Amino acid sequence: MNHPSIDPLLHGSSAVRRRAMAKAITLLESTRPDHRAQADELLTALLPHTGRALRLGISGVPGVGKSTFIEALGLHLIREHALKVAVLAIDPSSTVSGGSILGDKTRMEQLSNEQNAYIRPSPSGGTLGGVAEKTRESMLVCEAAGYNVVIVETVGVGQSEIAVHGMTDMFCVLQLPNAGDDLQAIKKGVMELADLVVINKADIDPHAAMRAQAQITSSLRLLMLHGNPDHDWKAGLVWRPKVITLSALKGEGVDEFWAVVSEFRAMQTGSGRLTARRERQALAWMWERIDAGLKHAFRQHPQVQALLPRLQAEVAGGRLAPSTAARNLLAAQMDKAQAAID
Amino acid sequence: MNHPSIDPLLHGSSAVRRRAMAKAITLLESTRPDHRAQADELLTALLPHTGRALRLGISGVPGVGKSTFIEALGLHLIREHALKVAVLAIDPSSTVSGGSILGDKTRMEQLSNEQNAYIRPSPSGGTLGGVAEKTRESMLVCEAAGYNVVIVETVGVGQSEIAVHGMTDMFCVLQLPNAGDDLQAIKKGVMELADLVVINKADIDPHAAMRAQAQITSSLRLLMLHGNPDHDWKAGLVWRPKVITLSALKGEGVDEFWAVVSEFRAMQTGSGRLTARRERQALAWMWERIDAGLKHAFRQHPQVQALLPRLQAEVAGGRLAPSTAARNLLAAQMDKAQAAID
Repeated sequence: MNHPSIDPLLHGSSAVRRRAMAKAITLLESTRPDHRAQADELLTALLPHTGRALRLGISGVPGVGKSTFIEALGLHLIREHALKVAVLAIDPSSTVSGGSILGDKTRMEQLSNEQNAYIRPSPSGGTLGGVAEKTRESMLVCEAAGYNVVIVETVGVGQSEIAVHGMTDMFCVLQLPNAGDDLQAIKKGVMELADLVVINKADIDPHAAMRAQAQITSSLRLLMLHGNPDHDWKAGLVWRPKVITLSALKGEGVDEFWAVVSEFRAMQTGSGRLTARRERQALAWMWERIDAGLKHAFRQHPQVQALLPRLQAEVAGGRLAPSTAARNLLAAQMDKAQAAID
Repeated sequence: MNHPSIDPLLHGSSAVRRRAMAKAITLLESTRPDHRAQADELLTALLPHTGRALRLGISGVPGVGKSTFIEALGLHLIREHALKVAVLAIDPSSTVSGGSILGDKTRMEQLSNEQNAYIRPSPSGGTLGGVAEKTRESMLVCEAAGYNVVIVETVGVGQSEIAVHGMTDMFCVLQLPNAGDDLQAIKKGVMELADLVVINKADIDPHAAMRAQAQITSSLRLLMLHGNPDHDWKAGLVWRPKVITLSALKGEGVDEFWAVVSEFRAMQTGSGRLTARRERQALAWMWERIDAGLKHAFRQHPQVQALLPRLQAEVAGGRLAPSTAARNLLAAQMDKAQAAID
C-alpha cells in the first residue's frame, strides 16, 4: 500500500529512520522541478501517517533564551515523559542571506546528542512563504517518523511568527521580564496569537517578572475580546491565554509549562477545536500558496515583463492611474494566451 | 488637448462643475465593462489636473464625533481660509450591505449647504478594495474640479483605515478621552499610521483628555521607533506625530488642528516626502489591484471551479497536502490555456 520510499521512515531502525528523514526533507527542500513532482508523491504517501504529534510554536526576540528553553523542554520531555522530540525552525533572515542562524545543532548540544531528538536548521533561500512551506512539509516527515512533539521556533521579527502560528497547534511567545517588550509584541499583532506567554529569565528579577505577568495578563484580556477563534473570554471561557514565568537556564518552571500545554491540548481535542484549527490552517495555507503562485506567474509573464517598467514609471510619475495600469497589465497577461488561441 | 468630457469639470460654472463631478463619479463607480474603458480614458485625461489638493484621512471609531469634527473643520476652512473642501468616505459596511451609513449629507447639514463644499457618500457593494478604488478615483475628480482639501473619512474598523492611509497625504486618528481605546488602536496597528492623533470631546473631561494625551504620546514614541518612513524619532526628527486635544462640538481647537496640518504639509513639500509618499501609494495601489485581479481570474477559471470543491475537501480532511493542492490548481488554470494553444 505504502509508497516504497516511506517504508524506512515508518519502520526502520533508529539510524535508518534518521537517514530516511534527512533524505525525505532534502527532497522536499529541493527546487528542481522534477524533484517537486516526486515530493508531491511523497507528501501524499506520508499524509495518512501524520497528524498525531503535538505541534508547538515557539517565538521570541533574539536574546529571550529560546534555545536554552527548547533544550530544557526537549530534555524534560524525552527523559521524564519518554517522548520523541523534533525541533524545526523558520528563520526569516535565511530568506535573504541564504544562511541560517537558527536551529543549528551546536546551540542545543545536549539535546542534539539525544537518541530521541531530531534537530533540523531552518531551510534557506527564497521567500518567507517558500521557507515556511518547506518547514511545514518537514513537520509531516517528523510526524510520520514517530516524533510525538514537533517544536517549530522562530525569531520575533516580521511575518515569520504568523507563519509559525499558521502551522502549529499551540503558539507560545517568550518574553523578557521587562514591560517595554510588551508594547512591541502588541504592536505587531503577535500577542493576540499567543495561546501561552512565557516570561523567561524570571530568576534574574522575580519582581519584574511578576509585574510583567500582571501587565501582560491584563493586556491579553483586552486584546482577546476580539478575534482569535481559539480564545474566548466571554462565552464559555474555552481558553483563557495564560501567562507563566520560568527560568529555562535553571530548569525552573518547565514542568509547569508542560502542564499548561497538556491542559490546552485536552481542551483542544475534547472540543473538536484541534481539528477545526488544523482545517483552517490547511485551507489558509493552500490559498497562500495559490496567491504566491499567481504572483510569480504574473511577474514571469513575457508580456508583463515587457510592459511593467514603463507602466510602473508612469504610475510613479502620476501620469497613469494605478487602477488603469493594473487593468492593462492584467489584460497583457491574458492577451498573450488569447492571441495564441486565436 | 483635453478629453472633451472633462472641460465642464475644469472650466464650468459652479453648478455645471457639480453636475460634471456627479456624472464623472457615477461613471467611475459603474461596474459595466464598457463603462470601465471610458472610465480609464477619463482618468488618464484627468490626471494632469490632479495632485494639487491636500488629501486628509480621518479615522475613528463610531461615536468619536467624526461628522461633527469634519463639519467644523470644513466650515472653518471655507470661511476662514477661503478653501474648497470635498468630503469622501470609505464605509466597510457598504461592501457587505450595499448600503452606506457614512457620508450622507444629512449628517453634515451646514457643510452640505456651502457652495464650496462637496460631500459624497461611500460607494457601496463589492470588496473593500473595490470600494476603496472608487473613492481613490473620485478624489481625482474632486482635485481636477478645483477642490483644495479632500477629506477621506472612515470608521475605525477593519482594513478600511489602511486603505485610507494608502490614499491620503496625512492620516489623522480621532480618539475619545479614555485610555482603553488606546490599546485597541495599537492592537490593530493603526496608531503607527497616524501622523496626528486628535483627542475629541476634550470639553467633557479635560483631565481625562490630558491623561490620554500624555499616554498616547508615550505609546507613539515606542511605536515609532520602527517602521513608518514619514516619521523619525531618532535621526533628524523629520516628523514627530503629534497628539492634540479639541472639542469639535464647541469648535475649540479646530484652528490649532489646521496649524498642525499646515506644519506637516510644509515639512512634506519641503523635504520631497510628499512626492515619495504619493509614489509609494500609487505603486502599492497598482499591485493591490493586480493581486485582486489575479485572484478573481483564478476563481472564475472553469478548470479551477471544477477542481476546487474536491481539492478543498481533501485538504480540509488532511488527505492532500495544501501545497500539492495549490500546485494542482495552479496547473489546472495554466493547462486550459495550454490545451487551447496545442
